[in-house]
Amino acid sequence: TASVGPATASGPVHIKNPHLDSMEENVLYHLDLGKKTHNLPAMFGDIKLVCVGSSPNRMRAFAQFMHKQLGLVARDLQNICQPRGAAAETGQWHGMGTPSISIMLQEELIKLLHHAKCRDVTIIRISTSGGLGIEAGSVVITDMAVDNSFQPRFELVVLGDMVVRSTELDKDLVGELPACSKEIPDLPTLVGHTMCTYDFYKGQGRLDRALCSFSSEKKLEYLKRAYDASMRNIETESSVFAALCGLCGLKGEFSRGRFHVLPAPPRSPASPLA
Amino acid sequence: TASVGPATASGPVHIKNPHLDSMEENVLYHLDLGKKTHNLPAMFGDIKLVCVGSSPNRMRAFAQFMHKQLGLVARDLQNICQPRGAAAETGQWHGMGTPSISIMLQEELIKLLHHAKCRDVTIIRISTSGGLGIEAGSVVITDMAVDNSFQPRFELVVLGDMVVRSTELDKDLVGELPACSKEIPDLPTLVGHTMCTYDFYKGQGRLDRALCSFSSEKKLEYLKRAYDASMRNIETESSVFAALCGLCGLKGEFSRGRFHVLPAPPRSPASPLA
Repeated sequence: TASVGPATASGPVHIKNPHLDSMEENVLYHLDLGKKTHNLPAMFGDIKLVCVGSSPNRMRAFAQFMHKQLGLVARDLQNICQPRGAAAETGQWHGMGTPSISIMLQEELIKLLHHAKCRDVTIIRISTSGGLGIEAGSVVITDMAVDNSFQPRFELVVLGDMVVRSTELDKDLVGELPACSKEIPDLPTLVGHTMCTYDFYKGQGRLDRALCSFSSEKKLEYLKRAYDASMRNIETESSVFAALCGLCGLKGEFSRGRFHVLPAPPRSPASPLA
Repeated sequence: TASVGPATASGPVHIKNPHLDSMEENVLYHLDLGKKTHNLPAMFGDIKLVCVGSSPNRMRAFAQFMHKQLGLVARDLQNICQPRGAAAETGQWHGMGTPSISIMLQEELIKLLHHAKCRDVTIIRISTSGGLGIEAGSVVITDMAVDNSFQPRFELVVLGDMVVRSTELDKDLVGELPACSKEIPDLPTLVGHTMCTYDFYKGQGRLDRALCSFSSEKKLEYLKRAYDASMRNIETESSVFAALCGLCGLKGEFSRGRFHVLPAPPRSPASPLA
């Protein structure tokens, strides 16, 4: 729902894989596109802003909304990867969790933007999440994704060795986005850290899943620690999204709507989970 | 495609969460069902076998196929959670990656089976995966899920602390399943370990993703080590599936069709990745 201002130049979209250059064809499996079979620069070269979210229905509705807002010619949006006009945008869904969004980003989106020779691309993930001590319905603009131990890192085992990536997001974009919400009434917007968990239930300390071995008190103690460490919401994709954006020269950001707060409501604005 | 023999008694489906008992209602969000709003024992209490897979289209096709095979009355399978006949089965999709399947299992399926008072339930995950030194098209029956460090464990941070779960699967079921494939011609079937990775690309050492910092030689060296440690395929959901089945009293198993082998073809049956 936020209107995003023009991104400052950040250059081309990097692919850091020497093997790809030597492959004559590179099939983007889920998009049914290929470097050789399609003229990707002509189809997608003008893309400047990409919005992604977890579910196909939600992203279709968002793409339709954006088309109206931008005054673009109505067309079939069922294949949401069709080329757009000058202010091109793509609404794409990525499923739940870091392994799922990683497939979409690495297999499809980043390679598509690279092959299409796009430049100065901003990518925004829009989604629901669990708010931490904030008003229900707030939008959190993420300045940093942190893991379940509150560290700004994304860890992954590659060929048996642990690799650690930074999860900081683009500072300029984080600075620009809060102003966008001022034009929209009743849209509380704030900047904060986002915690990325590998388990939707256990990660945010929910008590209603099939397995739960901790008390309500322990849960609140953990969430209060998270709040005190500047976390304002919890979701399941931010860490790998941030890591990949940083590595590939994309200006990345999260912007979330329709928040639900965690089961325990805040008691006071200053220390909501105390 | 395998026909599964009758499971020996394994008792009720456990929910290990004292908080759930005190909740008057428990909404199974994605199924649009609730403990209070629906008579779950009448609707689903006779379920003995559940099959899950990653994509909705594939699971719908599988449910339609099974209905024909079992001679059940044709009905609309669009909502694949509708009640079935005496030999009830559910075909359900769970997306990609451990965070995604964990939501489906913990939020929906295991709680549904528990609330419906099902007993002696077998659950089989059917999916494609990357084969390791095996003939393309083989079915691997998983005896143990291992992580990217070849360990039979599923690790998860819960309220800031690391929790480790076992990923062994039901030995009786692993023993029974290979016989089922003997009735079907040209269906190579074997028992082996399955490696669960958190990244589809990096986890199986693929060279065609957006980011890749290792050589083809290093990749083959890693895959050979995996093969020598009894791994026969790689996918992205087995570890949490095995851990949750073990904890909740479900007889769990993987059975995979339509395999694709990893880019480097086997050189010899004995040591295919050497």
